[in-house]
Amino acid sequence: MITACVIIIGNEILSGRTQEANLAVIAKELNELGVQVTEARVVPDVATTIINTVNEVRVKFDYVFTTGGIGPTHDDITADCIAEAFGLDMIMHPEAEAIIRQRDVPEDIMRSRLRMARIPEGAILIKNEYGPPGFQVENVFVLAGVPMVARAMLRDLPGKVKGDKPFRSITLGAYLGESQVAAGLAEIQSAIPQVDLGSYPFYKNERYGTNLVMRGTDREAMSVMADRVRQLIVDCGEQAVEGGI
Amino acid sequence: MITACVIIIGNEILSGRTQEANLAVIAKELNELGVQVTEARVVPDVATTIINTVNEVRVKFDYVFTTGGIGPTHDDITADCIAEAFGLDMIMHPEAEAIIRQRDVPEDIMRSRLRMARIPEGAILIKNEYGPPGFQVENVFVLAGVPMVARAMLRDLPGKVKGDKPFRSITLGAYLGESQVAAGLAEIQSAIPQVDLGSYPFYKNERYGTNLVMRGTDREAMSVMADRVRQLIVDCGEQAVEGGI
Repeated sequence: MITACVIIIGNEILSGRTQEANLAVIAKELNELGVQVTEARVVPDVATTIINTVNEVRVKFDYVFTTGGIGPTHDDITADCIAEAFGLDMIMHPEAEAIIRQRDVPEDIMRSRLRMARIPEGAILIKNEYGPPGFQVENVFVLAGVPMVARAMLRDLPGKVKGDKPFRSITLGAYLGESQVAAGLAEIQSAIPQVDLGSYPFYKNERYGTNLVMRGTDREAMSVMADRVRQLIVDCGEQAVEGGI
Repeated sequence: MITACVIIIGNEILSGRTQEANLAVIAKELNELGVQVTEARVVPDVATTIINTVNEVRVKFDYVFTTGGIGPTHDDITADCIAEAFGLDMIMHPEAEAIIRQRDVPEDIMRSRLRMARIPEGAILIKNEYGPPGFQVENVFVLAGVPMVARAMLRDLPGKVKGDKPFRSITLGAYLGESQVAAGLAEIQSAIPQVDLGSYPFYKNERYGTNLVMRGTDREAMSVMADRVRQLIVDCGEQAVEGGI
């Protein structure tokens, strides 16, 4: 399994002011490239924390993706932190500068915008159709925090990231409490350990229910597991809803 | 500052299947109790990862809050992991058992439900008006993952958590690009370092804009900062929208 850690940088996520909105999108996109997000961290706009976190996780995971802190204001310190984590100098990147200079704005505003062209020496740019690019240093990919821009940068990852097989999932829903299926699920999971079987309770349409999610790369084993889960639901007197509820 | 780390436990968050929905709520609730969430981690349903993460962060932060993995199914391993992290035995907690037995269900289903009464020896229960409780071991609070239940458990925290002053915030919005205010903001932040000044760009009503968020405990300094930020916005030819856009 090729693994990734996502580092979400920003006080606004930790204070609860802003609802985090990038992790799920990044995870799904990376899965399509055969990379599994196996950890995520949310850290504040504090240089030592960002630097230490990057240096800890870049040796523990195959890839690291950061979001946030690459804008033009004083609280955007991610690029400097990445340079420091890798012991690199910051340079004005000519290509990034050219992109930023395409917009016609007064010189004092341009001076602030050009902060976004400051990138660690040797970094590879990550394209952003809306403007200033992200960048990659070794296995660390630095993306924007604004969801629309983060998504644009994700579109430049194919070719930059080398993954394994994507995980696939099968979801079956049923209006059954988790406790009704718990014993049966444990048995199925033990019998087919190579597929991850998760159980997610919900309350919807004024009824309690559970979605059962099978996730893995072995399609045959997943299909066998799905048949057993369907049978378990029927044995409990309910119907299995394909795709979940 | 009294600090907390939130550990979000669950493969479904890391795969992108489920949008994380507890962090912001926990952060706001803890702030009201005078505790600041200064880091969060999302980890998979893997025992060694959960145990190591808990043991790392419980000495680094004043409080730790976990969400997820305390249901009745095989993938609910949080309680066992907490016991192992603290070197405690798991016991059937009589009060938790009594709560769980209040619901009248067949004995085989009750057997699965009673898994939720297995709690590390010496833990303090956290009330949940919907049923099975969470629990507290030293500075680690174990909450449910289902948002409705997590919220119920948060209501039992006053009295269990000792904080400092809550942080307050002032938000001013303006239809200005971040680069237009960047230099001014940097100056204001340097002049008033005890208040955190964040800049959050957005695209709304087909216009670009920026919300400026001041956060701290020093109300007088915040008020001075807000006046300066209002003036900065006016100087840039726009209106400051109180409360943000």
